Amino acid sequence: MKQAEHKLILASSSPRRREILLAAGIPFEAVAPSVLEVQQAGETPEQFVCRMAIEKAVAALDQIAHRSDAPILADAPILGADTAVVIDNHTLGKPASAGEARAMLRLLSGKEHRVLTGLCLLAPPAAWPCPRSELRTEPQLASTVVRFSLLTDREIDQYVSSGEPFDKAGGYAIQGLASKFIESIAGCYFNVVGLPVSLVYQMLHRFHAANPGRRPTQPA
Amino acid sequence: MKQAEHKLILASSSPRRREILLAAGIPFEAVAPSVLEVQQAGETPEQFVCRMAIEKAVAALDQIAHRSDAPILADAPILGADTAVVIDNHTLGKPASAGEARAMLRLLSGKEHRVLTGLCLLAPPAAWPCPRSELRTEPQLASTVVRFSLLTDREIDQYVSSGEPFDKAGGYAIQGLASKFIESIAGCYFNVVGLPVSLVYQMLHRFHAANPGRRPTQPA
Repeated sequence: MKQAEHKLILASSSPRRREILLAAGIPFEAVAPSVLEVQQAGETPEQFVCRMAIEKAVAALDQIAHRSDAPILADAPILGADTAVVIDNHTLGKPASAGEARAMLRLLSGKEHRVLTGLCLLAPPAAWPCPRSELRTEPQLASTVVRFSLLTDREIDQYVSSGEPFDKAGGYAIQGLASKFIESIAGCYFNVVGLPVSLVYQMLHRFHAANPGRRPTQPA
Repeated sequence: MKQAEHKLILASSSPRRREILLAAGIPFEAVAPSVLEVQQAGETPEQFVCRMAIEKAVAALDQIAHRSDAPILADAPILGADTAVVIDNHTLGKPASAGEARAMLRLLSGKEHRVLTGLCLLAPPAAWPCPRSELRTEPQLASTVVRFSLLTDREIDQYVSSGEPFDKAGGYAIQGLASKFIESIAGCYFNVVGLPVSLVYQMLHRFHAANPGRRPTQPA
């Protein structure tokens, strides 16, 4: 079996997701897909993160299929992932301003919220492009409950001034300065950072069991 | 108020505990106390980690009191911490051999276990040495439930060969290669790494509220 057959393509530009796979010793190559991340009317947060995970994986497949080294990597499954913070029916993305970051942290303070990550492990099709209906895109969902301690206005102001909230869904980084504000979690910790790595590992096991000798895909 | 009054002394040689405080932005200085870490007959795991936390803090106090720069730091509280992995009435420490590491991982595989950390935030006494009864050593305990996925013998062998189990209580590092084996946790994640940082942060708050203007300690 060639080494390439065990390689994973991570369809994400998140440095946290890369760090999680590196720490777990799961070999991968990352590509940064461009997708519009906007929740649709009537879509639940669960449906939203799963749809985003699929769209990221498909966008990455399309990028890879047009690369000159595509046949080397085309045997590898493509992992799309999308994470959202959900509280009181609000789906929190990344804060766009200090005011928005403060509002998010006031919402989270002293309460429990859920962190959802949608995952899609896409098997490259025999040829690309192909109809969407021919892609196997069954998404998986991870959900972790996170309990924040009660924050004072001063703590919120200091945390926002650190700059840490700005590129994080929900406006905080559990692995960073916000670690001291997190009383407890229930579920997968790495899901809160951005990638539920034990679920990814299990999905990869099932993928390789179901696809013992996949042939390289050729770009169309 | 002087800066030194906000400084914490970490009585631990664990690089993980230092990283957790650094990431949380809690200023500290670390000293490595020498204590004998052996569970006594009749002692519960909870009593054991709390006694160890106290002994580490007191050993660090003794070290600091004999340093030439002692008056600068003596105003700072001293944090002792000790972590143990508990499963089926076994208290697991650090594995002494590859065989012991494999036995620990077979015990943890497919099951839940508890990670306990005892904490002691010691206020330096007005003079040192002083009777133990004059020290305020009320310990605090953090407990997190960790669920391991079912491991194959091959996964256990590969993990032990990585060398990661050897300096870790219970023979694994949740933040390392073992991350992919951890299905879920309930409680504080950082407790599993070695220091429940939100509890430390709350203890520090209470310490500073109760000790607004502590005077420096003089070595005896």
